[in-house]
Amino acid sequence: MPSRYLSFRCSVPWLILVLQALLLLRSFFGFPGVSDTYSSSNSYPEFQDVNHMVIFGFGFFLMVLRRYGFSSTGFNFLLVVLGVQCSVLAEDLLVFLRGERNAAGLQSLAKAFVSVTAVVISTGAVLGRANPVQLIAMTLVELIFFYVSRYINETFLEVSEHLTGMHVFLFGAYFGLALASRFPEAPPGLDKDRSTPKSELFSVLGTVFVWVFWPSFNSILPYLKMQAVLNTYLALAVSAVAAFMLSALTSRDGKFRMAQIRSAVLAGGVTISCTAERIHHPWIAMLLGLLATVITILGSHCVQRCFNPALKLQDTSGVHFTFGLPAVLGAVAAVVLAVVEDGIDTRWNELSRLGYDAFVYIGAFCQTISTALITGLITGLILNIKLLKAVHVSKYFDDQFYWEVSFKIISD
Amino acid sequence: MPSRYLSFRCSVPWLILVLQALLLLRSFFGFPGVSDTYSSSNSYPEFQDVNHMVIFGFGFFLMVLRRYGFSSTGFNFLLVVLGVQCSVLAEDLLVFLRGERNAAGLQSLAKAFVSVTAVVISTGAVLGRANPVQLIAMTLVELIFFYVSRYINETFLEVSEHLTGMHVFLFGAYFGLALASRFPEAPPGLDKDRSTPKSELFSVLGTVFVWVFWPSFNSILPYLKMQAVLNTYLALAVSAVAAFMLSALTSRDGKFRMAQIRSAVLAGGVTISCTAERIHHPWIAMLLGLLATVITILGSHCVQRCFNPALKLQDTSGVHFTFGLPAVLGAVAAVVLAVVEDGIDTRWNELSRLGYDAFVYIGAFCQTISTALITGLITGLILNIKLLKAVHVSKYFDDQFYWEVSFKIISD
Amino acid sequence: MPSRYLSFRCSVPWLILVLQALLLLRSFFGFPGVSDTYSSSNSYPEFQDVNHMVIFGFGFFLMVLRRYGFSSTGFNFLLVVLGVQCSVLAEDLLVFLRGERNAAGLQSLAKAFVSVTAVVISTGAVLGRANPVQLIAMTLVELIFFYVSRYINETFLEVSEHLTGMHVFLFGAYFGLALASRFPEAPPGLDKDRSTPKSELFSVLGTVFVWVFWPSFNSILPYLKMQAVLNTYLALAVSAVAAFMLSALTSRDGKFRMAQIRSAVLAGGVTISCTAERIHHPWIAMLLGLLATVITILGSHCVQRCFNPALKLQDTSGVHFTFGLPAVLGAVAAVVLAVVEDGIDTRWNELSRLGYDAFVYIGAFCQTISTALITGLITGLILNIKLLKAVHVSKYFDDQFYWEVSFKIISD
Repeated sequence: MPSRYLSFRCSVPWLILVLQALLLLRSFFGFPGVSDTYSSSNSYPEFQDVNHMVIFGFGFFLMVLRRYGFSSTGFNFLLVVLGVQCSVLAEDLLVFLRGERNAAGLQSLAKAFVSVTAVVISTGAVLGRANPVQLIAMTLVELIFFYVSRYINETFLEVSEHLTGMHVFLFGAYFGLALASRFPEAPPGLDKDRSTPKSELFSVLGTVFVWVFWPSFNSILPYLKMQAVLNTYLALAVSAVAAFMLSALTSRDGKFRMAQIRSAVLAGGVTISCTAERIHHPWIAMLLGLLATVITILGSHCVQRCFNPALKLQDTSGVHFTFGLPAVLGAVAAVVLAVVEDGIDTRWNELSRLGYDAFVYIGAFCQTISTALITGLITGLILNIKLLKAVHVSKYFDDQFYWEVSFKIISD
Repeated sequence: MPSRYLSFRCSVPWLILVLQALLLLRSFFGFPGVSDTYSSSNSYPEFQDVNHMVIFGFGFFLMVLRRYGFSSTGFNFLLVVLGVQCSVLAEDLLVFLRGERNAAGLQSLAKAFVSVTAVVISTGAVLGRANPVQLIAMTLVELIFFYVSRYINETFLEVSEHLTGMHVFLFGAYFGLALASRFPEAPPGLDKDRSTPKSELFSVLGTVFVWVFWPSFNSILPYLKMQAVLNTYLALAVSAVAAFMLSALTSRDGKFRMAQIRSAVLAGGVTISCTAERIHHPWIAMLLGLLATVITILGSHCVQRCFNPALKLQDTSGVHFTFGLPAVLGAVAAVVLAVVEDGIDTRWNELSRLGYDAFVYIGAFCQTISTALITGLITGLILNIKLLKAVHVSKYFDDQFYWEVSFKIISD
Repeated sequence: MPSRYLSFRCSVPWLILVLQALLLLRSFFGFPGVSDTYSSSNSYPEFQDVNHMVIFGFGFFLMVLRRYGFSSTGFNFLLVVLGVQCSVLAEDLLVFLRGERNAAGLQSLAKAFVSVTAVVISTGAVLGRANPVQLIAMTLVELIFFYVSRYINETFLEVSEHLTGMHVFLFGAYFGLALASRFPEAPPGLDKDRSTPKSELFSVLGTVFVWVFWPSFNSILPYLKMQAVLNTYLALAVSAVAAFMLSALTSRDGKFRMAQIRSAVLAGGVTISCTAERIHHPWIAMLLGLLATVITILGSHCVQRCFNPALKLQDTSGVHFTFGLPAVLGAVAAVVLAVVEDGIDTRWNELSRLGYDAFVYIGAFCQTISTALITGLITGLILNIKLLKAVHVSKYFDDQFYWEVSFKIISD
């Protein structure tokens, strides 16, 4: 297939070049200011933590497929560094539209990393089936739609910036799912979409990194940082314990399943992300962590056995139950918490405000998820038109299609 | 053996569930407060470092056995997240018994991580031979006895909290050894307790993590944090250099041994842990690092050739010479330093105080080590009664007994 | 070859012992003071980051050779811990010669880590061909010459300490190259100098670590730390994007090359190191990152096809194009920036100062690179005299020559 190679060769580098040239051009006209040195210097450790988590953690978290290690880590790296630059631009535009003063340099980069997580999660759903051109196009389109969705939430529904930022898991997972539904399925005979003990170990390594840095991720945007850190940690700890418990309970002969545990230990962090700074009782955080794992483990059974086959959907890394379902639970928890909190300190004549708050949270949630599904579907359709010459299904999940290797890639 | 599987399946998840429910219930009645935000925020980086070191570092440090990678990392993760929650409870109780005000949230979690290190070290001694039920029971019992031992030291001997906390290596190593002596030995024909280059590389990865984060570990409890960091770093550096030197000197044809070096580079950190903040001359720290490595390398030869066979003891990860012997050296160094320091600024009529201080240090050391040995032995006896249906020796060191794997675990 | 083994055995441990004894002795007479606790405590995170980057990041970055994993990581570890101690001594001497007050403990260690990077880079050039005795001797000699070169630059050319410190990449790369030219070439039939997917993945892991921590490295010495961090991050991001683009453009059929990308993503960090704190416009940093990658990717083709074969030079890890060429570009950028900046705020009667500044920068650059080349060549000649009994070429790139392994080292 020389023509396919040629097309691939022609498009990827130039697409990157054009993008990078635009970003470079734009930086002529100013960039997140470095003037406010003092406030920046405070955010350096958290910027570093999130940087580490997104590039290293997610890069290795996705490395499950036995013949797709280079692509998992490499493309994740490329998409993150491209996405962060686009994201800084979009963030700037959002700030400009809100009429606010621009945030300091590193804070702005850290926020961009949070938004890029949506892209990383969506990538997981089409891992091994999308080629780099499709992934780069997806990155751009997804970031634009995510910022549009955030702008709607912030302007029309007056949701706080922190909450719209934390909708990143919800948006990323359902955008990815809708997108993945438009990619052709891998043939059942192809056994490249399996893992090996070694690839699983690298993935465990990435998971542990993501787990350890999650409190930093959840505490970037809130004001009450320490409360967010502590609640996130408690939710993650309970989540991890429950993951082992439920994995043993639901498997056939009481054994643990590594793939399930890898997804479920992170569920607590996803669920608590929207509410981490507003929970005042540790038991609520712990309970949310427990519920998140329950929904992830049960969800992984339902989704893989009923939902995906019914919709002919192939979700390579299981982003639906790893990030999607816990994020829905987190959004529900945010509504319930807001109602209960308001309910406690509201007098009867302010009941209308109570209803309004709940309405706003539900509205933001519905708007985000429907935008994600619709735009994901459209993006998926566009990315799979004949013109773009997508990857043939026989080349799915294979490093050798993208990487020049001087050695034989062994199949263990 | 369907009955064994069944028993295992029945007990693990419910044990975890009961434990987690208790911890959740307890959190209703308050938890390490998050009110004292300011003091907490200062301890976030050190909390993160120790979190990383215990979960990631030790998790991969233990991954030496070629067919036990999932269990080494996975069970370490489970025990740490369970243990930290139990530890926070025990810490609270200790604070209550001492009649003090509760520490701030993250500081309390960081201290809990220090205590959990005892469990991680003990696990190393029975790695591959204890099943998850036994490990979880061990975690609970060990933490309780460790806090009892600390309480005795702090109340009756009036030892500082910092010093009793740093007895964690001593307690962990000798509790683990006494425990391991009650587990049946693996048959000599079983060759699953070997390492492969790949498993050794993962272990090196973990070791380097532990090494780099050790200064953070030793500086969590002391007041003179920077002095503790600098002394720990110097001890670790000399330790690492000496490890290479002695490994080449003691091997048959001048080659290095990775397993030995992995143990010995950490020896300096263990030894200095009790005295890191009280050493004012860098050469003392460096000398202690050197002595620690000498004792570890020579100890590894003596222990593996004479001590273990004589006692029919099987110490999978060599915790005796990796953590036990350097911790004894550290305790001796603490006594000598206290005597010398006191001796210098003591007048003749205060000589009794000098003797008293030495007596207290020696008493605390003896109490800790004997409590560890006795309770470890009793725990080992209880965990190996027929009722608990321990693992059959033929299933030792094998991931497939605990993990559902869709792939053949290859034996390279 | 028992005599070779014997000689190796006899020399390595005693060489280490003598060195360590000297360092220990020296510490009797004081060490970087720990008195200035406050200023030290601020530098702990950056010390930790650089510690992590040099030991963990570079250790795994170098792990490309399929049968040389233990040696790559192990020897890097040994050389860094030895080198840091020597470096602290040299730094002390330099401070004494400058007549300044000694820096605080951790700051001094962090600076020592920066200097040791020269050794790590030089090691990359002779990786797999130099034995530990040669590497340890190289460490000592290289550090001495690097400090001599810095002293000349600081005293006679009055270059700032920050700039001379950041010449570490230039010095390390060209010292390593000159050194490597004196080592005999590996025979073409020997296929041990290849990588495997697994060794490449470990190397990617190290690269990502180095990439993430690079902003901390570049911001240790400057005063305007946040500006240095932000500029370094932008240069690295553009560098990473450009690396993927150019790798696909220059390969035969549009595929990516992992080895090339690993080198090129770091190029931006090397180039910006000299000027990170002095760039006020983000687009300059981004442009430098782009140019650095261009020079690295094109350089890797030129160097490997024309330069190295012509000079019969074997550069195992490609330090010439990974660190050498971007460092030259960085030095040129420093001159241009100094001239342009001075040019803007200089009146006509100060034009002589403009010329003087450019002259100083060019002088420092030429002095550093020529010192590196000459001393590297001399060191290479001395290290390869018959007396030292170098490694036979058939034993190149082989762990089994240095490490006692109980298992067969598999060749996949």
